[in-house]
Amino acid sequence: MRKIDPGKQEIRRRKILDAALACFARKGFSGTTTSEICSEAGMSPGHVFYYFPNKAAIIAAVVDDELREMSMLFSRVAGQEDAIAAIETIASELLDRSLDPVFVRINVEISAEIMRNSEIGQLFAENEQHIKAELIELLEQGIRRGQIDPTISPASAATWLIALFDGLMNRALMDHSFLPEKHAPELMRMLRRYLEPS
Amino acid sequence: MRKIDPGKQEIRRRKILDAALACFARKGFSGTTTSEICSEAGMSPGHVFYYFPNKAAIIAAVVDDELREMSMLFSRVAGQEDAIAAIETIASELLDRSLDPVFVRINVEISAEIMRNSEIGQLFAENEQHIKAELIELLEQGIRRGQIDPTISPASAATWLIALFDGLMNRALMDHSFLPEKHAPELMRMLRRYLEPS
Repeated sequence: MRKIDPGKQEIRRRKILDAALACFARKGFSGTTTSEICSEAGMSPGHVFYYFPNKAAIIAAVVDDELREMSMLFSRVAGQEDAIAAIETIASELLDRSLDPVFVRINVEISAEIMRNSEIGQLFAENEQHIKAELIELLEQGIRRGQIDPTISPASAATWLIALFDGLMNRALMDHSFLPEKHAPELMRMLRRYLEPS
Repeated sequence: MRKIDPGKQEIRRRKILDAALACFARKGFSGTTTSEICSEAGMSPGHVFYYFPNKAAIIAAVVDDELREMSMLFSRVAGQEDAIAAIETIASELLDRSLDPVFVRINVEISAEIMRNSEIGQLFAENEQHIKAELIELLEQGIRRGQIDPTISPASAATWLIALFDGLMNRALMDHSFLPEKHAPELMRMLRRYLEPS
């Protein structure tokens, strides 16, 4: 029996997902075929099949990766002392990511996929709830520490901050004159003016 | 020669576009066939062909309609006396529209389409510039009238307001617990706190 090397397995799995990301960013989830992913990865269909039974499984893994990373960003800042600085860190990291065309395109593909694929929709909704809960906790902590205006409604504020972050990630795609480094200070100013105690 | 009735023509054109909207909301731009649009409209392919030579032309017309409507909303409020009230009117109308699942789905389809279709990308970019210019003018007017904080940067502020509006339109799709009437007051509060002079 051939021994399985978990390190090698993970590298191969990652190689398939990176190839899939490149294809999906170019042609979308529905426009990409499994054989295109195989040739992008330089692997045989049988080899790819060993890791992912079909395209749906590859899409699910790509979406899961993206959501997990987003979720980790929110969890990472949750422990910061200053609530507004923590929210600014999220905004700043998302601005950086918004310059990566693959990330931006996959993000739009995920939005389209949640409309048509209930499994992806469920995955997304759970992640959204997790991110929102982290943000609400961060806002409540900031209110307790006197860093955030106590008259805001944390649940509603979290909703609108997520809306803003969501729109932010599409800026580079939708506005060709968008320059994160130029527009970032006004975004931070918007967050501070909204959240700081009057 | 048969006389052409422009009123009837416009009604038939609208009928095709409404059928297309319903199909596109269900299956996306790329997942919908011209023949599905014909049966949804209850019209023969020849009849539909008289108005639109192919699916690309139908997509372009749908996108053009959506963008024109969005643009008209921004132009309509531009004349209001109170700049912040004008921006709140935009937010409020977008909140209303965000409850229409067809609108929300078409909106996501358009985002996906601008990545892959340069003609649609161009149409979208021009519209985005027009909307931004209206918003900048509104902000500058508000600053001149003492309604808006003079330390904001109108061009950057317009960028982030558009990002917020963009994220807003996806809320109902992405967050199943989203209730516009519940979250609207906090959105208006966010806009006022950010824009009003300190």
